[in-house]
Amino acid sequence: MAETEVARTGRRGRGGGGAARRAERTAVTTDTARFIERNIPNFEILNAEALEIIEANAETVLEEIGVSFSENPGALKLWRAAGADVRGERVHIPRGLARRLCATAPARFTQHARNPARNVEIGGNSLVLAPVYGPPFVRDMSGGRRYATIEDFRTFVKLGYMSKWLHHSGGTLCEPTDVPVNKRHLDMLHAHMTLSDKPFMGSVTEPSRAQDSVAMCEVLFGRDFVARNTVMTSLININSPLSFDATMMGALEVYARANQACIVSPFIVGGAMAPVSVAGTLTQVLAEVLAGVAYSQLVRPGAPVIFGAFVASIDMNSGAPTFGTPEASQILYGAGQLARRLGLPFRSGGGLCGSKLPDAQAAYETANTLNAALLGGVNFMLHACGWLEGGLVASFEKFVMDADQLGVLHKLAAGVPVDVQAQAMDAIREVGPGGHFLGCAHTQAHFKDAFWRTDLLDYKPFETWDEDGARDTQVLAAARVTKLLADYRQPSLDPAVAEALDGFVAQRKAAQPDAFA
Amino acid sequence: MAETEVARTGRRGRGGGGAARRAERTAVTTDTARFIERNIPNFEILNAEALEIIEANAETVLEEIGVSFSENPGALKLWRAAGADVRGERVHIPRGLARRLCATAPARFTQHARNPARNVEIGGNSLVLAPVYGPPFVRDMSGGRRYATIEDFRTFVKLGYMSKWLHHSGGTLCEPTDVPVNKRHLDMLHAHMTLSDKPFMGSVTEPSRAQDSVAMCEVLFGRDFVARNTVMTSLININSPLSFDATMMGALEVYARANQACIVSPFIVGGAMAPVSVAGTLTQVLAEVLAGVAYSQLVRPGAPVIFGAFVASIDMNSGAPTFGTPEASQILYGAGQLARRLGLPFRSGGGLCGSKLPDAQAAYETANTLNAALLGGVNFMLHACGWLEGGLVASFEKFVMDADQLGVLHKLAAGVPVDVQAQAMDAIREVGPGGHFLGCAHTQAHFKDAFWRTDLLDYKPFETWDEDGARDTQVLAAARVTKLLADYRQPSLDPAVAEALDGFVAQRKAAQPDAFA
Repeated sequence: MAETEVARTGRRGRGGGGAARRAERTAVTTDTARFIERNIPNFEILNAEALEIIEANAETVLEEIGVSFSENPGALKLWRAAGADVRGERVHIPRGLARRLCATAPARFTQHARNPARNVEIGGNSLVLAPVYGPPFVRDMSGGRRYATIEDFRTFVKLGYMSKWLHHSGGTLCEPTDVPVNKRHLDMLHAHMTLSDKPFMGSVTEPSRAQDSVAMCEVLFGRDFVARNTVMTSLININSPLSFDATMMGALEVYARANQACIVSPFIVGGAMAPVSVAGTLTQVLAEVLAGVAYSQLVRPGAPVIFGAFVASIDMNSGAPTFGTPEASQILYGAGQLARRLGLPFRSGGGLCGSKLPDAQAAYETANTLNAALLGGVNFMLHACGWLEGGLVASFEKFVMDADQLGVLHKLAAGVPVDVQAQAMDAIREVGPGGHFLGCAHTQAHFKDAFWRTDLLDYKPFETWDEDGARDTQVLAAARVTKLLADYRQPSLDPAVAEALDGFVAQRKAAQPDAFA
Repeated sequence: MAETEVARTGRRGRGGGGAARRAERTAVTTDTARFIERNIPNFEILNAEALEIIEANAETVLEEIGVSFSENPGALKLWRAAGADVRGERVHIPRGLARRLCATAPARFTQHARNPARNVEIGGNSLVLAPVYGPPFVRDMSGGRRYATIEDFRTFVKLGYMSKWLHHSGGTLCEPTDVPVNKRHLDMLHAHMTLSDKPFMGSVTEPSRAQDSVAMCEVLFGRDFVARNTVMTSLININSPLSFDATMMGALEVYARANQACIVSPFIVGGAMAPVSVAGTLTQVLAEVLAGVAYSQLVRPGAPVIFGAFVASIDMNSGAPTFGTPEASQILYGAGQLARRLGLPFRSGGGLCGSKLPDAQAAYETANTLNAALLGGVNFMLHACGWLEGGLVASFEKFVMDADQLGVLHKLAAGVPVDVQAQAMDAIREVGPGGHFLGCAHTQAHFKDAFWRTDLLDYKPFETWDEDGARDTQVLAAARVTKLLADYRQPSLDPAVAEALDGFVAQRKAAQPDAFA
């Protein structure tokens, strides 16, 4: 596929014939596919009437119930000046105001990477894939489930860099619990900046850490470049229902002022943080995003933002969040429609699952979510690979398992060519009734690029597979993790920049005592 | 959900509170959901121009290349009389003729079950789910992979009967290799007719066996009923490319004359039996279905038929068929559009996978196919559960794993209600910013039916799951198989009918020597 030809910086196997094809296929490269540009329609589950009801109700929520901006007098002041009715910390937004404020947010933007071939476009028909975010634990076959460390984090950055279908290095791939809470962001950003050349996310856990993130980007990209360009996309969660806490909003303020992108994302477990109905949840999601995006535009009109919707359902027996459910897919499809009507890039989906292991449950739930995200018009997909156990665990094996499936999304999104070559009438003529296409000219000319190819899954005959140890997907994935890490080579970086980054991290660490909560 | 209230014939746990809810949830019943009636749009991957190109090319294939009806002088005679240009065994069909002949086939039809509550509608916006068909092997955790027997077959009939989301008992659930080839169909039909009350499929391996299938239905339903109603849907594979062999066509002739339904289904591994391109494969599929359905209408105008498309791709390294690939999904989506333009019910999809085990690979591939089948407008989904190893193996564990996921399809297909209750504005008002929805009136009123609920997957907290043995999906599924079989109760059947069926099977077995190939 042509899109994999961009940004090749690695090595490839060479030779001819079947053995060479196999070698080529399994050779580890750091080819990275270009972000997906969909050539297929979006799946629209809601009709116009349903959309209008939800949009009208969201305006009612904003006006009548309002949203809470707690411990944030600056935000209340901005809202009051914009015409909202502020009572205590509750902001009542008159009908239409939030939507009008959202109009200054760009419909799409470029996030720059230090390797310009890896810049991503976010919005329109694009789909950018980023890995798992946030788990305090990691799991692999040999070590089991354990608290994550900075070494685990670095390993995930390397795996992300080596993953052909992953466009983005992500953010908090796992929580490096062995590093003081107030210094983790420095080590994480340093890893993204030095071990990969893909775009990445900034810290949101304190406004000062967002500021550090901007400062480190100024070291990496240059101050002028950062002033003129978006080089980070960061995750701002709304405290659903309808609450915007000062810490997250503080980080959003830092990023918006610096013209850096934020995902404004309700974090919803349906039945707990939102109603048990799909239409009710969509109403709340829309109200929350309208308020959050409008606020970003009050801070800086034109600041790049993404309409986020992270949605799970609650299992009414255990209270656990569930993933890959039909309700989650319906909400994703509906939220995509609402985002497009608002003219904003859309974030949802990912390799979400509740399973404890990278087993069939994990894969069903993940595939359900990945398929919905592709067809639902997601532009930025966080958690695209590596997510396990409801986001408590980052799994090394699942990272490469999901990353392989992301190739399926690329090919499916490319649509169906119907040019003369694709029509293949010569092949049908050549082969005729009862014949075989393997040897025909059309097949010989096109078989290499015709079909998506896995780098992981097993297609061997039963007997061969059995002789090879009857390995399941998890075992194959563990072997692939080992191979990718063995083949990893750090992308080059100007030594002066690397030294400056080291210096920044050391200076910021020395400037404050360790904090562990 | 209301659709599960139909056809309840089993037992339910009773009581109140959390424990009772759990008991109710895990209680085994023989509730069977009504077939799916989609309340969501179809996903249409091809635009009008692409569809017209493919349709025009299919007519060219039929006219210029033609199709082969080998060793079937009766068919050639019918085609000649209809206006085709027959040269040897090659039938060249003038542009437009096949499509005109297809016009007498019904857009939808009812397949009757002996329990009328389990009748299914095939066509329009319906989706009927039927289990795996054809594997010579079975696999379970305790016994591994082995040749299938008639006892295995009966076990699968029982599992299908106990599966809430499965509407159809299917056909050759596995090949009972311990029964002579020429007598298997009698034992298989006997099992479907006596161990289940869901609709089923007839034999297609010999015209005489199709005749036996009709005769057994006359015993079960009564001769008059069978003359007036469709009581079987059987699978007629086209020998792709473009060949219609006399055995399969002989079975089709028997069924069409008896007004029984046939799926006319190209059996395609892309790159081997069709071109390596999606558009080329769709062209061939359409040409083959047009010819096969037209032939069924020559045999008996108005005979019920289904536009089938079984499509896999070949792995160019191993030659193995692959499933759940993006090309297979594209072909499925496109074939659905072609079927709807032809006004025919559509068969495709299923829980298709290439994996040897019911592991993550199996689940990714299966979920990719199930999702495409739902959104692609499939009306009859064979292989919806239990399929493993490219169809070589019927897996007991995967049967119940997939069958659980079929519930996801039901809920997703139901669409998104936007009535006042679903809008949930009272809930959003009641809870307000920072509140919690678990206790609110709306949640209490609706939580039981709000979300799809698994009967299999694990949502426990990590510690509980770990103490319970850290079971993966396959282990949970093995336990569910055991439970379902322990709870199985044979549906009642008029003893006179049961005796007559026994007698028919005994008489037909005695009338011929055993054949083993």
